[in-house]
Amino acid sequence: MLGTVLYGPRDIRFEAREIPSVEKPTDAVIRMAATCVCGSDLWDYRGINKVTEPKPMGHEYCGVVEKVGSAVTSVRPGQFVIGSFFASDNTCPNCRAGYQSSCMHREFVGTAQASILRVPLADGTLIATPDMPPKDMIPDLLAVSDVMGTGWFTADAAEVRSSKTVAVVGDGAVGLLAVLSAKQIGATRIIAMSRHAPRQKLAREFGATDIVTERGEDGVARIMELTGGVGADSVLECVGTKESMMQAIRSCRRGGHVSYVGVPHGVTLDGEELFYAHVHLHGGPAPVRRYLPDLIDLVWQRKIHPGKVFDLTLPLDQVAEGYRAMDERRAIKVLLQP
Amino acid sequence: MLGTVLYGPRDIRFEAREIPSVEKPTDAVIRMAATCVCGSDLWDYRGINKVTEPKPMGHEYCGVVEKVGSAVTSVRPGQFVIGSFFASDNTCPNCRAGYQSSCMHREFVGTAQASILRVPLADGTLIATPDMPPKDMIPDLLAVSDVMGTGWFTADAAEVRSSKTVAVVGDGAVGLLAVLSAKQIGATRIIAMSRHAPRQKLAREFGATDIVTERGEDGVARIMELTGGVGADSVLECVGTKESMMQAIRSCRRGGHVSYVGVPHGVTLDGEELFYAHVHLHGGPAPVRRYLPDLIDLVWQRKIHPGKVFDLTLPLDQVAEGYRAMDERRAIKVLLQP
Repeated sequence: MLGTVLYGPRDIRFEAREIPSVEKPTDAVIRMAATCVCGSDLWDYRGINKVTEPKPMGHEYCGVVEKVGSAVTSVRPGQFVIGSFFASDNTCPNCRAGYQSSCMHREFVGTAQASILRVPLADGTLIATPDMPPKDMIPDLLAVSDVMGTGWFTADAAEVRSSKTVAVVGDGAVGLLAVLSAKQIGATRIIAMSRHAPRQKLAREFGATDIVTERGEDGVARIMELTGGVGADSVLECVGTKESMMQAIRSCRRGGHVSYVGVPHGVTLDGEELFYAHVHLHGGPAPVRRYLPDLIDLVWQRKIHPGKVFDLTLPLDQVAEGYRAMDERRAIKVLLQP
Repeated sequence: MLGTVLYGPRDIRFEAREIPSVEKPTDAVIRMAATCVCGSDLWDYRGINKVTEPKPMGHEYCGVVEKVGSAVTSVRPGQFVIGSFFASDNTCPNCRAGYQSSCMHREFVGTAQASILRVPLADGTLIATPDMPPKDMIPDLLAVSDVMGTGWFTADAAEVRSSKTVAVVGDGAVGLLAVLSAKQIGATRIIAMSRHAPRQKLAREFGATDIVTERGEDGVARIMELTGGVGADSVLECVGTKESMMQAIRSCRRGGHVSYVGVPHGVTLDGEELFYAHVHLHGGPAPVRRYLPDLIDLVWQRKIHPGKVFDLTLPLDQVAEGYRAMDERRAIKVLLQP
C-alpha cells in the first residue's frame, strides 16, 4: 500500500507502507473513498511543529468497511462509514458528556492519507450512512469527518442561536463551515473576517451577511462599528494564533461567547484582560463524533453542502502538490482521491 | 466626616474627609448602616497593587438614603438600600444582558469605608428593602452587596445545577459563599478546598459535603480521586492567582465549567493546556446588581445567612485593626460599624 509520510519541513512523500490490518478485536479496516489535507497538517508541514522522525499523515476519512474485529457490532464489511480524528469508545464519562475527543481511551487516527486505514474503537467511532452514497456526495461526507464537525462545534460552543450576531475569525475551511453552521442554526447576522476574494465568495454562499477585511485591532474596531459599539454575541475563533484569539475576545460583547477550535500555537491569555472582557470561553479539539449522526443526516438530505470547501481535487499520489497548494493558499482545501 | 484612606503598604488611616453630597442629578447619598473590608482590598494593603497616592477605600455598603438627585425616581430618602461596587445605569446593552459590572457608564464605588457615601447612577444601582431591616439582618444584607453576589455569580457562571458535583477553590468569604450558593442552587456534592479549621467549619455549615486540604497538583489529584478520575462538573475559582486558576482548570471534568471571580494577579493561561482541558470558562467582575433583588429577598425571608462570614465586628474607627486581622488571617471578614 502507498501512504503519505512527512519527513521534514515541506518534505511530503507518498511511499510504500505496510497494509493496515485488524490488530485488536475493536478495530475496523476501511478502504478510503476520499481523504484530504487539513489546515492543521500545515503546522507540521511548515516545520512549526517539529517533526523528528518520518510521520504518517492524515486524519480525515470516509470509505467502505473491509474488515472488522471480533468485538465490533455496529458496523460491518460493505458499509460506507465516516469517523473523526480521535477514535473514541463513546461509553466513558467524557464521551457520555459529549466530549468524545477527550475520550478516556481515545486514539488519534493519523494515517488517513492512504488507501487503507485502520480505525480503532470502531463501534464508538464510526457511523454508517443509510446506504452507499452517490459519488457526488462523497466530498460532503468527507467534510463531516473533521472540518464540518469542527465548524459546527465552534458554533455550538459559542452558543450561536437564532437572531444572534456572530463573527467568525479565520477564513480557512473550518471558518467557512463555521459560517455555514451559524446559518444552519439560524443566526441573523454572520460577519466573516476574510481578505481573500474566493473565500469571501464562499462565505457569502454559506450565509455570511457581512465581510470584514480588517485584522487585529482594526478588525475589532470594525466589528464594534457593525454592532453599535457592543460587540458580537458569539465569536468563533478558527485559527489558533494569539492574534486571532485576542481579536475574537475583543470583538465579543460582555457576557457573550467566544469559542476556539484551532490548535493553539504560541497562545497565552492574560488573566486580567480575560477577566474584564467578561466573555464565556469554550473550545478545544472538536468532539466531532457528537455531531456525526445529525451532520450525516443533513448531508444525506442534501440540506448542507460542506464539500464546497474542496476547491481542488487531486489523485492521492499527488498529495505533495495538495500540501503545496494549501501552503501557498492557492486552495482552501484539497480533496485526495485514492 | 471621617473616612478610610490607604497611604501605602499597611498604612491605613481613618481621617477627616469632605462630606459626600449629591453632585449629579442621578446621585444618591446614603448614611452607612455597615461596611466591611474585602479580600480584594488586601491587594492594595499588601502593596501588591501599587498605591501611588492616598486612596480612599471600601466598596461594600448598605444604609439609609439621605438625599437623592433630581433625576432619581426608584429610591427615596429614608429607604434602606443596598448597592454593588460598580454603579450601573441598568439600561445599556451590557446591563440588559445582565452584565451590570460592565455597564457602559459604570463608575466604581470606592469610598465606602466611611459613614456617608455618594452612590452614582442611583436608579440603576440601588435596591431598597421592603422595609427598615431589623438590626440582626444587617450583616446578611451587607454581604449581599459584594461577597454573596460574587459567590452566587461564580456558581451561576460555572452552571451549578442540582445533582452536580461542585469544587470550590478558595476559602475566603467569596469561596465560602460560593459554597452556600451551590447548596442553595441544589448541588448534590460540594467539595470545599480549605486548610483552615474555622473556615472548614463554616463551609460545612454552608453545605460543603467534602473538605480537601491539599493544594496545587495534590489538590487536583484529590479532586480526581473523589470524582472517580473524571473531575468536578463545576469548579469555582475564588482566589485570583495563577496557581488557583490552574488548580481549578485541572480539577474540572472535560466539558465542565470553571468560573473565576478573584481579580487576577499574575495570571496567564497557556492556550494549549486550555485547549485540551476542554472546559468552559467564564468569570470577571461579578454583576452583583443582576442578583440583588433575589438575594435580598432570600435574606429578607431568612432563607440564607451570608452574614456569617463576618467573624469580627469592629467600630469603623478601628478599620486599621480590621485590615490587620484579615491580612493575618485572624478573621475571615471584618464588618465595620459607623
